[in-house]
Amino acid sequence: MPLGEFDLIHRYFERPIEQRQDVIVGIGDDGAVVRVPPGVELVLTSDTLVAGVHFSEDIPPEDLGYKALAVNLSDLAAMGARPAWATMALTLPQADEAWLAAFAQGFFELAQRFSVALIGGDLTRGPLSITVQMHGFVPEGRALRRSGAQAGHYIYVTGTLGDAALALTPRLAELTDTYRPYLLGRLYRPSPRISEGLSLRAIASSAIDISDGLIADLGHILEASHVGAVLEVDRLPLSTALQKIKDKKYGWELALTGGDDYELCFTVPPEHQAVLESKRSDFACTVSCIGRIEAERGLRCIEHDGTPYLPQGGGYRHF
Amino acid sequence: MPLGEFDLIHRYFERPIEQRQDVIVGIGDDGAVVRVPPGVELVLTSDTLVAGVHFSEDIPPEDLGYKALAVNLSDLAAMGARPAWATMALTLPQADEAWLAAFAQGFFELAQRFSVALIGGDLTRGPLSITVQMHGFVPEGRALRRSGAQAGHYIYVTGTLGDAALALTPRLAELTDTYRPYLLGRLYRPSPRISEGLSLRAIASSAIDISDGLIADLGHILEASHVGAVLEVDRLPLSTALQKIKDKKYGWELALTGGDDYELCFTVPPEHQAVLESKRSDFACTVSCIGRIEAERGLRCIEHDGTPYLPQGGGYRHF
Repeated sequence: MPLGEFDLIHRYFERPIEQRQDVIVGIGDDGAVVRVPPGVELVLTSDTLVAGVHFSEDIPPEDLGYKALAVNLSDLAAMGARPAWATMALTLPQADEAWLAAFAQGFFELAQRFSVALIGGDLTRGPLSITVQMHGFVPEGRALRRSGAQAGHYIYVTGTLGDAALALTPRLAELTDTYRPYLLGRLYRPSPRISEGLSLRAIASSAIDISDGLIADLGHILEASHVGAVLEVDRLPLSTALQKIKDKKYGWELALTGGDDYELCFTVPPEHQAVLESKRSDFACTVSCIGRIEAERGLRCIEHDGTPYLPQGGGYRHF
Repeated sequence: MPLGEFDLIHRYFERPIEQRQDVIVGIGDDGAVVRVPPGVELVLTSDTLVAGVHFSEDIPPEDLGYKALAVNLSDLAAMGARPAWATMALTLPQADEAWLAAFAQGFFELAQRFSVALIGGDLTRGPLSITVQMHGFVPEGRALRRSGAQAGHYIYVTGTLGDAALALTPRLAELTDTYRPYLLGRLYRPSPRISEGLSLRAIASSAIDISDGLIADLGHILEASHVGAVLEVDRLPLSTALQKIKDKKYGWELALTGGDDYELCFTVPPEHQAVLESKRSDFACTVSCIGRIEAERGLRCIEHDGTPYLPQGGGYRHF
């Protein structure tokens, strides 16, 4: 007889929670019980990955486990929150134990890196999809919002843009073996910018994570902040791999509208730029200034000589 | 052009949160921000409903919205927790606005009854499924667990059992129009026993909610508490509707192994029985003693004359 739901959860998802004193009851009751430290607010994020929509079935299960957590950690990073607990709703067509073992391995590899405890969830039968919910902490009143950008603030992004989108195009095949694994890694194993998000609490006036493409996600900041922006496309940070595609505008398009970057886009008031510069060496990734907030609504892209540049695509549309 | 993800969320799921002062940031940023009151622990539950597995496609969308929240509130009730905030991951094949409006109406009808704020989630395209996560509060150290049952404690259940299971059988057609709507209501709109759960914090030694059938779920209490039990099948609370099926053992089977009851099963030490009796009038539902915990492991069912009764089915198996 194959293992049932509860045996599968016990075998693959119940891990000793050594790293956290704040988990009173973990997996295995009707609910989990946790303790929130005094002086902090709780930040909640939730992201779903659906087979055939957010990932193709050929993604290695360990990468899928990793990514399901990473995209939620990325949301916490954009709020300036420190990760604490995860729950996971995993829906599977069948209980394939080798798949589950690999999936759990990828999930817990990343969870341990950020001291995240998996404290509950649900394992059900059905079309493959994963909803992870993350919980994290920010000091009272210190969460990074989308709504604080003001005219004159500078627009920054972490890391490089467009790599994951390139990994999904046929042009991936144009690249040598040196770059393909890098790009697939960017697609499958994005690096949540948690420590950068924590540093940005004292620096940024607004922040968002780039999941649907820079234009779409920066658009959310502009809308929430009631402002506009100018982006200089020559300043978009492109990886060496993406620069190997010898078509400058193609690179800009991927950086502007490709999804799945999971980098942070944030705004910095001029008076905080010196602090940001002083923190650069603490960051695990590059931080690039790509434009400026303006009072005039709308998003304008320009080349370095001021020529307007019109992006071709929009952000990812779920419906 | 049809409405996009964010417009749909705004139109159907973003409601003013008047009832709660503890929501700092609701829907519309990378994460929600909430404040946990001092002196309480946070209880988290998560349940997924998948089309074709947990419900058939002919369920009215308003009932589905109601039920997706109700099954999670039921888990909170079993922990003795007071509901606070929900997040919802909703995956839909297409954005049907009439469907979404009805679904949201059912969800918020129940949410408002229990002062639950929907503070976040995710709307994605894919096969229909809903994961709701609930957050609630218990005073420190007061959560009801599965692990506190001891030999000599009495076993109770709220309400009646087997109604939802009967609604899923062809025998539903044997019943008159008087009983069919009642039974479908029990299947589609279970009543989360929240106030009963709050009262039970001072009374019960263990508790669970009955979602996979009494035997399966009581089995979790016995396992977590390292005890066994005797159940008297004649004492199983059956609704008038279920009693209309003139086959006593069929009724017992549904009560013992049918799923989707969303009643509470709990144990009471003898010294707390008087308190339970004094609270009966506060409860919105009946509370029935159906057996007793014993030191000997395993679950034994007996008829009123002591004859052993062997149930035919097991609980619902997800895999």
